[in-house]
Amino acid sequence: MRKNTIDLQEKLQELLLAQRDNFLQGKVADYIPALASVKPDLMGISVATIDGQVFGAGDYQHPFSIQSISKVFGLVMAMNRIGDSIWQRVRMEPSGQPFNSIIQLEWEKGIPRNPVINAGAILVSDILTSHFSASKLAFLSFVRKLAENDNIYVDNQVYLSELKHGNLNAALAYLMKSFGNIEAEIPDVLSHYFTQCSISMSCEQLAKSLLFLANKGIDPRTKETICTARNAHKVNAILSTSGMYDQSGEFAFSVGLPAKSGVGGGVIAIVPGYGVICTWSPPLNNYGNSVVGMNLMADITEELGLSIYY
Amino acid sequence: MRKNTIDLQEKLQELLLAQRDNFLQGKVADYIPALASVKPDLMGISVATIDGQVFGAGDYQHPFSIQSISKVFGLVMAMNRIGDSIWQRVRMEPSGQPFNSIIQLEWEKGIPRNPVINAGAILVSDILTSHFSASKLAFLSFVRKLAENDNIYVDNQVYLSELKHGNLNAALAYLMKSFGNIEAEIPDVLSHYFTQCSISMSCEQLAKSLLFLANKGIDPRTKETICTARNAHKVNAILSTSGMYDQSGEFAFSVGLPAKSGVGGGVIAIVPGYGVICTWSPPLNNYGNSVVGMNLMADITEELGLSIYY
Amino acid sequence: MRKNTIDLQEKLQELLLAQRDNFLQGKVADYIPALASVKPDLMGISVATIDGQVFGAGDYQHPFSIQSISKVFGLVMAMNRIGDSIWQRVRMEPSGQPFNSIIQLEWEKGIPRNPVINAGAILVSDILTSHFSASKLAFLSFVRKLAENDNIYVDNQVYLSELKHGNLNAALAYLMKSFGNIEAEIPDVLSHYFTQCSISMSCEQLAKSLLFLANKGIDPRTKETICTARNAHKVNAILSTSGMYDQSGEFAFSVGLPAKSGVGGGVIAIVPGYGVICTWSPPLNNYGNSVVGMNLMADITEELGLSIYY
Amino acid sequence: MRKNTIDLQEKLQELLLAQRDNFLQGKVADYIPALASVKPDLMGISVATIDGQVFGAGDYQHPFSIQSISKVFGLVMAMNRIGDSIWQRVRMEPSGQPFNSIIQLEWEKGIPRNPVINAGAILVSDILTSHFSASKLAFLSFVRKLAENDNIYVDNQVYLSELKHGNLNAALAYLMKSFGNIEAEIPDVLSHYFTQCSISMSCEQLAKSLLFLANKGIDPRTKETICTARNAHKVNAILSTSGMYDQSGEFAFSVGLPAKSGVGGGVIAIVPGYGVICTWSPPLNNYGNSVVGMNLMADITEELGLSIYY
Repeated sequence: MRKNTIDLQEKLQELLLAQRDNFLQGKVADYIPALASVKPDLMGISVATIDGQVFGAGDYQHPFSIQSISKVFGLVMAMNRIGDSIWQRVRMEPSGQPFNSIIQLEWEKGIPRNPVINAGAILVSDILTSHFSASKLAFLSFVRKLAENDNIYVDNQVYLSELKHGNLNAALAYLMKSFGNIEAEIPDVLSHYFTQCSISMSCEQLAKSLLFLANKGIDPRTKETICTARNAHKVNAILSTSGMYDQSGEFAFSVGLPAKSGVGGGVIAIVPGYGVICTWSPPLNNYGNSVVGMNLMADITEELGLSIYY
Repeated sequence: MRKNTIDLQEKLQELLLAQRDNFLQGKVADYIPALASVKPDLMGISVATIDGQVFGAGDYQHPFSIQSISKVFGLVMAMNRIGDSIWQRVRMEPSGQPFNSIIQLEWEKGIPRNPVINAGAILVSDILTSHFSASKLAFLSFVRKLAENDNIYVDNQVYLSELKHGNLNAALAYLMKSFGNIEAEIPDVLSHYFTQCSISMSCEQLAKSLLFLANKGIDPRTKETICTARNAHKVNAILSTSGMYDQSGEFAFSVGLPAKSGVGGGVIAIVPGYGVICTWSPPLNNYGNSVVGMNLMADITEELGLSIYY
Repeated sequence: MRKNTIDLQEKLQELLLAQRDNFLQGKVADYIPALASVKPDLMGISVATIDGQVFGAGDYQHPFSIQSISKVFGLVMAMNRIGDSIWQRVRMEPSGQPFNSIIQLEWEKGIPRNPVINAGAILVSDILTSHFSASKLAFLSFVRKLAENDNIYVDNQVYLSELKHGNLNAALAYLMKSFGNIEAEIPDVLSHYFTQCSISMSCEQLAKSLLFLANKGIDPRTKETICTARNAHKVNAILSTSGMYDQSGEFAFSVGLPAKSGVGGGVIAIVPGYGVICTWSPPLNNYGNSVVGMNLMADITEELGLSIYY
Repeated sequence: MRKNTIDLQEKLQELLLAQRDNFLQGKVADYIPALASVKPDLMGISVATIDGQVFGAGDYQHPFSIQSISKVFGLVMAMNRIGDSIWQRVRMEPSGQPFNSIIQLEWEKGIPRNPVINAGAILVSDILTSHFSASKLAFLSFVRKLAENDNIYVDNQVYLSELKHGNLNAALAYLMKSFGNIEAEIPDVLSHYFTQCSISMSCEQLAKSLLFLANKGIDPRTKETICTARNAHKVNAILSTSGMYDQSGEFAFSVGLPAKSGVGGGVIAIVPGYGVICTWSPPLNNYGNSVVGMNLMADITEELGLSIYY
């Protein structure tokens, strides 16, 4: 089903070239100055395979703010730490609402629909804050290990901006706490949450760091078990139904892979048994997903026959 | 990845036996008398593969009311008839609400979230009613052809019961019409909808009739194109995010296949590139899904390594 | 507190003149052709007092479609017929939502917030349909008696238009029926509802016919008890909190009287112990209330010191 | 209409006696320990008239936590300070939802329905915090002046409890801030809000302090203008439609006066042109209103013929 990847490098160049002007159709996230100042015409794509190859084109080594893509790492850490008890505090159902809707959270008594909407990721941050003595450091170490790169950092300017404009996330956190579903102090939880959102990584780093999700939980390079096969399965399932905000269904239609996007313009997609794709282009569509990223993911997946729904 | 199916027949027997008493944990749908009178301890499972084999155990040849599973056939017919223009009248996003919620429909101005919740399926019924001179007959013919069986019928007692207890569906239909999203007369649309819900089929018939969805739109037995590969992909994508009511995410977690359930107790699951599984056991859990069906699907999928998320 | 009414006639002329051009700020209801064709610059005001005087200015004897003002008559009839048992099927709380919201109705399990939003009035129509052998005739007779005028009729053109465009009301009715809160057949209930909405009356007729609500239930002209003092009190209470759609609070602010408006452009206000005011001017504001009517009510009430909140 | 008050003192005793055991039907607020420890069988009633008389029975001089009754004082202060510009930040419509619903607040983009639900009162607290150099002190001074009593204090134990259990109110505040509708820092706003809620006053003090609302804004004892007649009118209008949480409509039905309740068990009712009634009994019904208070208000109003809807 999947084409030989011998000339994948060339193909990536070609696909990227075809998107050259499409970034103009989107709008860079401007809710914080630190994101708004990114150059809109940067774009990159990288593919890492479980047999050890890495391909890339364009600005695929340029670091960007990973934002909500960090929710994937956080979820894996929390599942590793507290096991299935996590599912008593957050559901695994699609949200069917914009990504930060407070309505559903009240409706369902402080239990977020899933761990990759904001409320759910804040809840995961509460778990990490409560179960690690230094959760921010633990998070960064986890990501660095997965990316095999110690030069991954939190962008402090982004972090401070997030904190300053984080009122809606604070509202979500206090609402959950009012239902008894947050254990740690809210400022600590939010500080962790905004820290993990403010990490900068490149397409290449992200693609490599998530390979274990395409390989039943095992890092194909080191053979180390990052999480159980079952948990890798769960993450992929959640990303398939809920990873792309209120465009998750459309992404399943046009691409057909477990994926997660961030408002920094990045998108990662897991191809079980094959590898990971990561794209980056800052301008977003109305759903908060990268315009060019959506196109690139559809093109590369079609080209290589990677969809899980065929 | 997928085990040899040489002793699948035996395995199905074994899995079914293990579920023998679990039907007691559920409750047969009782909103209409015609469904409430079904024997709760009937259960069956069937697997049809694209290479032409059919396996079965228990009451796998016993006809039951397919109910919402009919939404899959209706969607394929409508896509074949009016193409992608269908997506201007119904979205393809997970619903995040109970299957018949009227709230979301008002919120989103009469546009259903997807074609496999009730509102969406009523909209599909409107398309069929408007575009076929005899839509009920066309529907039955389509199903009979796919099942290669002319002895498939509408259960008239179920149909009359549905009609009599169909007030909520009527409310959904009138609400959509108030937004201008229904073309035909409501009584005609509902009559079509309740007719297709009232068809009786067996596990074996359902499994065989949906093989084209596991085979890029092509009936593997006749090589006939039932729908385009792209449309088969879309159906599988929708069933993955939304096919199991408000338990779709959990089903993705524990099973990991495109699937659709009905309140008659049936569940079908598509395994792309492999075949179709159908289970039947009338008692339902709180989400409206068959208790035994959920278990059987998890067991057989684990056993054969069929999940699309590994 | 209340000024001598000796020159009220002159005052009404003056207030009306001041509003001469303000109808231009509104928009005549256009959801049905029969209402859309009304001349927008017609306007009238009438005041009837419990001591037997009637004043009027402008087109105060010109009949118009009373629309939702009919809900007041229907509520009195239903309370007279089934007593306080009505409050088991409809609440008496403000709605806090647009007048025809289906969301709240689902949220509260088919129990309308109050009897003067659409859902509540449809429920009242169900009571009338179920408890009168000829409810439409009974309704018309009741209104004629109160207005002391046998030349009050249903506008059949309006009725047919309402019926044709009544999908949202049908949705509300079927939703309530799905919760078991409607007894009669929906088409009969809606036929009654649209009939009472389609009655034509003048400002003078409306003002006179509602005098009993300003006089503890007793018609001041005939001394006949139309309803109990307690029920008159309840109607006035409901009209105070909920009579002006989602502008009820603002009306309480600027006017301070129990009132009900209709999309035909009429507004009635009850002044307990004094009389009834009725205004008419077809163009509506965004809330569905007559622009000129809102102004006239504020002016006349201020002028005569009639507010119940001072 | 209103009976001679010559033996009102005796009547109050009698009405109170009749309620002696009814406190058992309610439940003392227990969300904070400081409130939960109040003796449930305390009860009192006081009536202050604009002609200078004060009546009382039972524990009418026993101080209790005024809680949400403080919203009335806060609203008057804010209207006095910033005039009608307040209505650009909060509406005056009934809420139609439980008193602390966050759903409506999101739905309406951070604009609270009215100033006497929690969100609205927090917004008023923001105005006070932003416009007074020492808003808590200003608030206390205002209340002391109205009550003509310098021995009114904040219960610090209640205050600390409120602060500790104030997560839902924090969520409301942060949500409004995310929509740009809060100016001051949230901790300051909440500190003010919980301070005013934690003031202790007796029935007699409350009845006397609110007389200006029954007298067109003028304190009848000192002839001082506390607020404009128009603003007194507005407060009474809001209290009529929204003062008793989601039982406001029922209160209008059974009592018919502008009123406000608090979870400390107090209820105040304004009788325009006559005076103020205050009752106190800690056990609450399901809506958060004092069981005995609801009864007493209905009884005294019926007895004296005070309803504004007759």
